[in-house]
Amino acid sequence: MSAPSSGQPEQSERPGRVMSGEMAEQPAVLRRILRDGAPRIREVARAIAARNPRFVLLTARGTSDNAALYTKYLLEIELGLPCGLTSMSTTTVYGARPDLSDVLVVTVSQSGGSPDLVASTEAARKAGAITLAVTNNPDSPLAAVSEFTVDLLAGPERALPATKTYTASLLALYLLGEGLRGGDGAAARAIPDLAERILDRGDEVRQLAARYRFAERMVITSRGYGYPTAKEAALKLMETSYIPALSYSGADLLHGPLAMVDNVSPVIAVVTEGKGGQALQPVLDRLRDRGADLVVVGPAAQVEQASAGFALPTGGVPENLQPILEILPLQLLAYEVTIARGQDPDAPRALAKVTETN
Amino acid sequence: MSAPSSGQPEQSERPGRVMSGEMAEQPAVLRRILRDGAPRIREVARAIAARNPRFVLLTARGTSDNAALYTKYLLEIELGLPCGLTSMSTTTVYGARPDLSDVLVVTVSQSGGSPDLVASTEAARKAGAITLAVTNNPDSPLAAVSEFTVDLLAGPERALPATKTYTASLLALYLLGEGLRGGDGAAARAIPDLAERILDRGDEVRQLAARYRFAERMVITSRGYGYPTAKEAALKLMETSYIPALSYSGADLLHGPLAMVDNVSPVIAVVTEGKGGQALQPVLDRLRDRGADLVVVGPAAQVEQASAGFALPTGGVPENLQPILEILPLQLLAYEVTIARGQDPDAPRALAKVTETN
Repeated sequence: MSAPSSGQPEQSERPGRVMSGEMAEQPAVLRRILRDGAPRIREVARAIAARNPRFVLLTARGTSDNAALYTKYLLEIELGLPCGLTSMSTTTVYGARPDLSDVLVVTVSQSGGSPDLVASTEAARKAGAITLAVTNNPDSPLAAVSEFTVDLLAGPERALPATKTYTASLLALYLLGEGLRGGDGAAARAIPDLAERILDRGDEVRQLAARYRFAERMVITSRGYGYPTAKEAALKLMETSYIPALSYSGADLLHGPLAMVDNVSPVIAVVTEGKGGQALQPVLDRLRDRGADLVVVGPAAQVEQASAGFALPTGGVPENLQPILEILPLQLLAYEVTIARGQDPDAPRALAKVTETN
Repeated sequence: MSAPSSGQPEQSERPGRVMSGEMAEQPAVLRRILRDGAPRIREVARAIAARNPRFVLLTARGTSDNAALYTKYLLEIELGLPCGLTSMSTTTVYGARPDLSDVLVVTVSQSGGSPDLVASTEAARKAGAITLAVTNNPDSPLAAVSEFTVDLLAGPERALPATKTYTASLLALYLLGEGLRGGDGAAARAIPDLAERILDRGDEVRQLAARYRFAERMVITSRGYGYPTAKEAALKLMETSYIPALSYSGADLLHGPLAMVDNVSPVIAVVTEGKGGQALQPVLDRLRDRGADLVVVGPAAQVEQASAGFALPTGGVPENLQPILEILPLQLLAYEVTIARGQDPDAPRALAKVTETN
């Protein structure tokens, strides 16, 4: 926790400065959403609630798709609103025109510019849906075609692996859920400070990263509210370090892919403090039985029983807010593993060109 | 296509006889569904259609989850019925009790015995849903808690990697969709013979398998109706050979994970004959530009432009039926790759114990 950790000057010469800068901005972005964004989110939620949606479809790709999955858990559990994730090609490729009256369509997109997201949202609105864009660009084509817009207020995102817009999306969508059910979202006030404390522990994560320097594959698992975190962590690791990182819900892992896990396949488990973490317990026991190298992001007591981990301070925030915190050490891990492997987190091989086409 | 291919006696001594036997049964199972199962499926579809469901939730795990995803495309495209995949833990772990009136819940499970599927379906029925079990065991607990049941008629499945129940599920769910929209499902009549022709080409697949003997990872991609095939192929490969096989819709691949693909990461593309295949075209071009080792399962013209492939005879069947055919060479591939790597497809390391607990 002390030996080879770098001081300021060395720090500034490390690669991946764009990504690390944006990760570091997260507490400020979260504060901004709570201070400047919350009133507008509450207003949007009130207008949507008045329309009584019966079903929610969530539309997104990549990192935002994981924010959409978080929202699925949130709205199904807290509001009893059945949710589905949109298969965009049904509309954009096959021309399906479902009846979407009483349906809320939430499209999550950092740039708000992907043509297929815009086309899918536009088609949904024509089909009778209530449409909401959650985007970091309120002047985007997506916002233009949507009835309602929530601005993520995260400032320009220049790093190719999205970090600050992910946590911003989670918080904005949490506040939306609170608004829909008439809650005040007060529990979220603790989040920015907790995020800051976690992001200050980069040296700890750097030590964890050493064990993945030569990894050929990784498995990341969780259950319930932590599952979107597992998926987002896998995506971050793949985008930056190119390690094949496979994410599974704990229940699915036991249905087959456990064959992938043995004593040379490291496993990261995201253990929420609450029902999801409890439901993951049999999976954790099973992984330990198999001699897996198990790293836990979660409560200190769980970390102690694992091979290693990152004890997550949750300050007693409810389970449905913990995903905003859980992803932070895993973003740092993706960054540190990439550097440990001699690569540059700011220069993923394929991402650059893609972003141009969006 | 001739040299080291084995004759009958050698064939019978190969490992994985349970899996290969069940793969070979598929044409007979498909015929049985068309002959003996179709009338009951039509009757169930008529009863469900009379109740006018507005949304569909699909509940499944593992291989059946890929059949559920196929059904999502089918019902959204052909019937304009918005669909979602159930996150079971919202009910079984968090106790969510959404209002499911006007909602059709389709639970797909080979065994019909997984406690979480049964609990989730039971909760859905109590919440007002129309419940349908699609299972290979009509005497299962799942069938007992569901209002309607469709029997897959596939005979006992003993192999740990499911094959015949997957194609049986697709055909049964296709016929259900046809019944819901008042179609006659006649296009499916060509499927069993086409399946037989494909399964007879095991030697061709064995040659393809050689290129993956030393693969450390694989990427499988498709769009639209072929996407569930890509996911199921990845699951089969992982369950049998333990190669980390990552599946992406072509659109998602361009949003990030393309960084995983370079000239040492082989890619398999499932190219349907129809709109999904057309929409995949830019992704295929991109992969070729990057010098990817691209193997295509699809139309002969697409195979010719790739590094290698398996030309799929579709006999002009519509795109929404092609997934039943596309998966067959990929099941064979999982089997052959596993044998090429000196492992036994009938003895995956972790699956056995798991099935006991279901």
